[in-house]
Amino acid sequence: MLHSAPSNAAPQDVTRTLARYVVNARVEDLPQPVLDHAVRTFLNWLGCAVGSCNHEAVDIAIRALAPFSGAAQASVLGRGERVDIFSAALFNGISSHVFDFDDTHLKTVIHPAGPVASAIFALVEHRPVSGVEFLHALALGVEVECRIGNAVYPNHYDVGWHITGSTGSFGAAAAAGKLLGLNEQQMTWALGIAASQPVGLREQFGTMTKSFHPGRAAQNGLTAALLASQGYTSSEQSIEAKRGWANVTSTKQDYREITEGLGERHESLLNSYKPFACGIVIHPSIDGCIQLRNEHRLSADMITSIHLKVHPLVLELTGKRTPKVGLEGKFSVFHSAAVAIIDGRAGENQYSDAAVLDPQTIRLRDSVEATVDPSIAADSVHITVRLADGRTLEKFIEHAIGSKDRPMDNDDLAVKFMDLVTPTLGADRAEQLLNACWALPRAADLSLLTELSRPSA
Amino acid sequence: MLHSAPSNAAPQDVTRTLARYVVNARVEDLPQPVLDHAVRTFLNWLGCAVGSCNHEAVDIAIRALAPFSGAAQASVLGRGERVDIFSAALFNGISSHVFDFDDTHLKTVIHPAGPVASAIFALVEHRPVSGVEFLHALALGVEVECRIGNAVYPNHYDVGWHITGSTGSFGAAAAAGKLLGLNEQQMTWALGIAASQPVGLREQFGTMTKSFHPGRAAQNGLTAALLASQGYTSSEQSIEAKRGWANVTSTKQDYREITEGLGERHESLLNSYKPFACGIVIHPSIDGCIQLRNEHRLSADMITSIHLKVHPLVLELTGKRTPKVGLEGKFSVFHSAAVAIIDGRAGENQYSDAAVLDPQTIRLRDSVEATVDPSIAADSVHITVRLADGRTLEKFIEHAIGSKDRPMDNDDLAVKFMDLVTPTLGADRAEQLLNACWALPRAADLSLLTELSRPSA
Repeated sequence: MLHSAPSNAAPQDVTRTLARYVVNARVEDLPQPVLDHAVRTFLNWLGCAVGSCNHEAVDIAIRALAPFSGAAQASVLGRGERVDIFSAALFNGISSHVFDFDDTHLKTVIHPAGPVASAIFALVEHRPVSGVEFLHALALGVEVECRIGNAVYPNHYDVGWHITGSTGSFGAAAAAGKLLGLNEQQMTWALGIAASQPVGLREQFGTMTKSFHPGRAAQNGLTAALLASQGYTSSEQSIEAKRGWANVTSTKQDYREITEGLGERHESLLNSYKPFACGIVIHPSIDGCIQLRNEHRLSADMITSIHLKVHPLVLELTGKRTPKVGLEGKFSVFHSAAVAIIDGRAGENQYSDAAVLDPQTIRLRDSVEATVDPSIAADSVHITVRLADGRTLEKFIEHAIGSKDRPMDNDDLAVKFMDLVTPTLGADRAEQLLNACWALPRAADLSLLTELSRPSA
Repeated sequence: MLHSAPSNAAPQDVTRTLARYVVNARVEDLPQPVLDHAVRTFLNWLGCAVGSCNHEAVDIAIRALAPFSGAAQASVLGRGERVDIFSAALFNGISSHVFDFDDTHLKTVIHPAGPVASAIFALVEHRPVSGVEFLHALALGVEVECRIGNAVYPNHYDVGWHITGSTGSFGAAAAAGKLLGLNEQQMTWALGIAASQPVGLREQFGTMTKSFHPGRAAQNGLTAALLASQGYTSSEQSIEAKRGWANVTSTKQDYREITEGLGERHESLLNSYKPFACGIVIHPSIDGCIQLRNEHRLSADMITSIHLKVHPLVLELTGKRTPKVGLEGKFSVFHSAAVAIIDGRAGENQYSDAAVLDPQTIRLRDSVEATVDPSIAADSVHITVRLADGRTLEKFIEHAIGSKDRPMDNDDLAVKFMDLVTPTLGADRAEQLLNACWALPRAADLSLLTELSRPSA
């Protein structure tokens, strides 16, 4: 982006301006597209959290920390446990991120829902609000995170902050503070207390601590909002002061990204969703293979070879020829193309240990070749499939599903949700939960959603 | 410090080396001076926490967060409440710091006990250990914090991190992990999970959030150790990696400060204690006035004038002529000299709102003059007192009490402790608690201490 003034222009009440916006925002003024997008953000978060709720990282965190939990105030999604709101925020935050399948604000690579939704979903089970109030707070929290992220990205990310956790405390504080009814002074303090608690190093990528980041950020924001609600004071320039958050955690500060166009430009509308449970560089190949499969009713035994012309990053990041465990499959464009043809999808099931060792998948995978073509864009691919009957099929994907130019629509999100949630809750309950998500803007509270997100008795 | 190699020499297993040291350290090998110093560190922490336990910041934090606390596992010092270990760690961490009267590692300005003692005092009420095991863990936690602080100071502090909170998560994780019996792998993970949670901006100084920092750091370290104990994974190079803690939070990294001389050079021995409840630049003046008072049995009405020749920073930082509220008194060398003469001390009581408005104190304060003399060192003062009977008294303080060259001895610490604790618990119980602190190295557990640190029924 080009700006006429230097990017480090003297800030004016950045924290207070942001606090004032969140406090004064009225649900009646919420544009319909922002509300609709908040539903999608919530639905995607919920699907990820329920789908991953039995992951080892969640089990370990519960085993380690539940003995210190308070009263049964909030639910651990997809599981039977009920714990205090802070514990629920942590456990749900971990599970929402552990499949790396959550939402992405592509400008900053923030995964916005994890910290925000995990904080307020726990809060509203304890302190009920209407569906639309919940969604409004979610949209505001996402807005706060992404705007603060914009102000410091890319330097903040480049130095090593896992920006989801380092901005997530703000988003969670803003959203929780909104639902707690904080006034401007209290909201300013809440953002200040959040500012003192950035979470997350990129060095943790590949370990369970990566998923801890959004969970802890959710707890931090919730803590900040609750403390501020009772008058716990902080700096009132915690973001922009000389020794405030932006200067301490970044060498770039563009405060206009935070304060300009509030209520007019909605960063939350830029939140996107991943259709496939792997790095986005493989998504065009998967998308194209699924389309070819569906258009031509392909099965593995019909295929002689698959050739992919890909962007250079694809082989650099995901060129693993022979994955041995499920996680390695996520770094194999060959495995991904094979499961896309065979199953017509690439969800977490397609990246299990069993999936990468399946003989039919291995046979098809071995017939996949990929060559780099610098003229292919990052969200594009050119696929050539040769069939045993002599035919040759071609497919050019200009913009992969889930990319900025071709976002997932509601039907796509529903398929993803069902894929994620069915193994945990069964298809019937998953469908009911999905419907409850779509109905959330008209719900009096979130009790039905909460009930349906537990395993049936 | 001068080093032969560049300060950013390639690190070798910094995190693991530190973890291994903490895991393998045996209580039998603990040098007596380190153990003795750990007793002092603990006693000073306990006195501060009990003395400040009814501060507004503690009241607010309890009001905001206790509704979400778990089972009655640990005590809030000086008060009746019992809460889960995480809540106790936070509340005691806040109260230990809120008077700005806690310990200081002068090389880094870390206040080491707050994060570490707050974490493990809560833990051992839930999982008892012997007094010497507790003190050993405390010394190790302080060692870890201060060594990590040394590696990044001053750049890390200069950019704006409140180094007590940003290194405190490590200290608390190490100490709690030691008491939980973590092995080397688990301790490496615990330090890693702590690395993702630095707390605290200097921008918060002057607000309640400053005191939140050591409390939150205590919780962060405790969380990290408990997660790691159950196998929650993190990076194994979380401190030294390219996108690890030291590179993300500082432009200086000297890893030898962390790894060299472990078990031989003890940073924890450099921990010092403040004799007076105000900034250290005023301490020489207070020290000298108390000495003159005691040597000459001075009272306010005997005095015509007091003249202080001081280091330049004294008037820059504490030149407030007419304090109106207690907190401003801490920034008035004039008020401080007056109360030192009148009361013979400068504890929290001497900085109450009532104290700065006391007519006798104001009269004496108005007779105090201070002039800057660049030849006076920061821990020195030259005092001239003129008496109504015509005598002139002089006192040169070369090294103020509490400075590196004249540390507080056990008797000084006992006086400070009694001053802090008596208003909360009464003199008898304060004395019993003091004796229990001195006896801690021989105690089978901390139950007597915990019992005595509550108000009597």
